[in-house]
Amino acid sequence: MSLNALDSLIETLKRLPGVGQKSAQRMAYHLLQHDRLAMPRLAEALTAAAERIKHCERCHTFSETPLCAVCADPQRDGRLLCVVETPADQAALERTGSYRGYYFVLLGRLSPLDGVGTRQIGVAELLARAAEPGVEEVILATSFTAEGEATAHVLTEALKARGITSTRLARGVPVGSELEYVDLGTIAHALTDRR
Amino acid sequence: MSLNALDSLIETLKRLPGVGQKSAQRMAYHLLQHDRLAMPRLAEALTAAAERIKHCERCHTFSETPLCAVCADPQRDGRLLCVVETPADQAALERTGSYRGYYFVLLGRLSPLDGVGTRQIGVAELLARAAEPGVEEVILATSFTAEGEATAHVLTEALKARGITSTRLARGVPVGSELEYVDLGTIAHALTDRR
Repeated sequence: MSLNALDSLIETLKRLPGVGQKSAQRMAYHLLQHDRLAMPRLAEALTAAAERIKHCERCHTFSETPLCAVCADPQRDGRLLCVVETPADQAALERTGSYRGYYFVLLGRLSPLDGVGTRQIGVAELLARAAEPGVEEVILATSFTAEGEATAHVLTEALKARGITSTRLARGVPVGSELEYVDLGTIAHALTDRR
Repeated sequence: MSLNALDSLIETLKRLPGVGQKSAQRMAYHLLQHDRLAMPRLAEALTAAAERIKHCERCHTFSETPLCAVCADPQRDGRLLCVVETPADQAALERTGSYRGYYFVLLGRLSPLDGVGTRQIGVAELLARAAEPGVEEVILATSFTAEGEATAHVLTEALKARGITSTRLARGVPVGSELEYVDLGTIAHALTDRR
C-alpha cells in the first residue's frame, strides 16, 4: 500500500505523550474512517496554538498576550505569590477557586542531571519578582517529589537570604482517602502538621 | 487566562479516540512546553493525510492512488479474495505475511440499528468483485463479534446464492494462551473445528 501519508501521520501522532504505535494507528484509522472533519480542525488548532501561545512576561505561564489574564488582573491579592512548576499546575490551582494571589511558573524543576539548573527555571526572575513592593508571602507549590522538594528547598534558602517569607503547601492525607490505604510518609507528615 | 487557542486545542484533541479531558490537557501542555516542533509537523501530517488519502477504487481500502498497492500488484494470488471490515484489519492480515491474495474492505459491518445496511458496506460491489473470473474462494475475515458474525452470515448466503464458495477464518485458541484462561465458547469452537 502506498501509504506514505498514513505512515507519517501515525509516526507524528506517536509524538503525543502516552501514544504508542497501536494508539497512533487507532487514532489515524479512526480519523480517516469516521472523523475526517476533525483532521483540518486539529491541524488548524495546532497551528494556531503554536503561533499564538507564548509565555507571560511576568509569570511565564502560557499566554496569548504579553501579560496573562491573571497578571493583568488588578483585583488579585498582590501580597501573595505562588510558585508552581508548570502552567498545568497553575491551572489546577486556579480551578480550586481558593487562591486569589499571583503566580510564578518555573516551567520546570531543578534537575542537575538533566541540565536544569537555577538559570533554566528562572530563579533570578523569581527573586526579583518576589522582592517587588507589596509581596508578603511566597507560597512554594512545587511537586512533592524528590526534585520538586529539592527545588522548594533551594528557593526557600534563596528567598530567606533576601529576607522574604516563604511557605510550602501543606502535606497531609488527601481528601476522600481512608487512612488505612495512605502511605506511611504522608500519615507521618499529617501527624506532625496536625492543627 | 486568555487561553482560547489552548482551550480549542484541548477540545480538538478530545476528538481523538481514547482521549478525554485529562489526556487532552496533558497532550496540549506537553506539546507547548516540551515539543513545539511537533505541532506544525502534526498539523502538516494531518492536512496531507486528509487531502491525499482516498479509497482504492477496487478494494475500498485507504490509498493515495486510484488503485492501492495490493490491487495494483499482479503477483498476488487472484484466486483468493479476503473480506475485512476495516483498513486496519487488512493491515493486520498483511503484517502476518501469510496471505497473498487480494482484499475487499467493507469499511464497516452490518448494524441495522445504526443505519448500516448492505448498501453502506458495499455488498453489491463485493458480489460483482467476487464474480470476476479467476476468483475461486472468498475468505470472510470479519470480526468474531455479534455484528461481524451477522455480516459474515449475510455475505455467505449472498455468495452461495451466486454459486461462489466462501470460507470463514478459523475460530480457536489464540497462540500463546493457556487453556485454563480461554473463554468456554472459544474452547468449544476449537474442539468442534479440531483437525
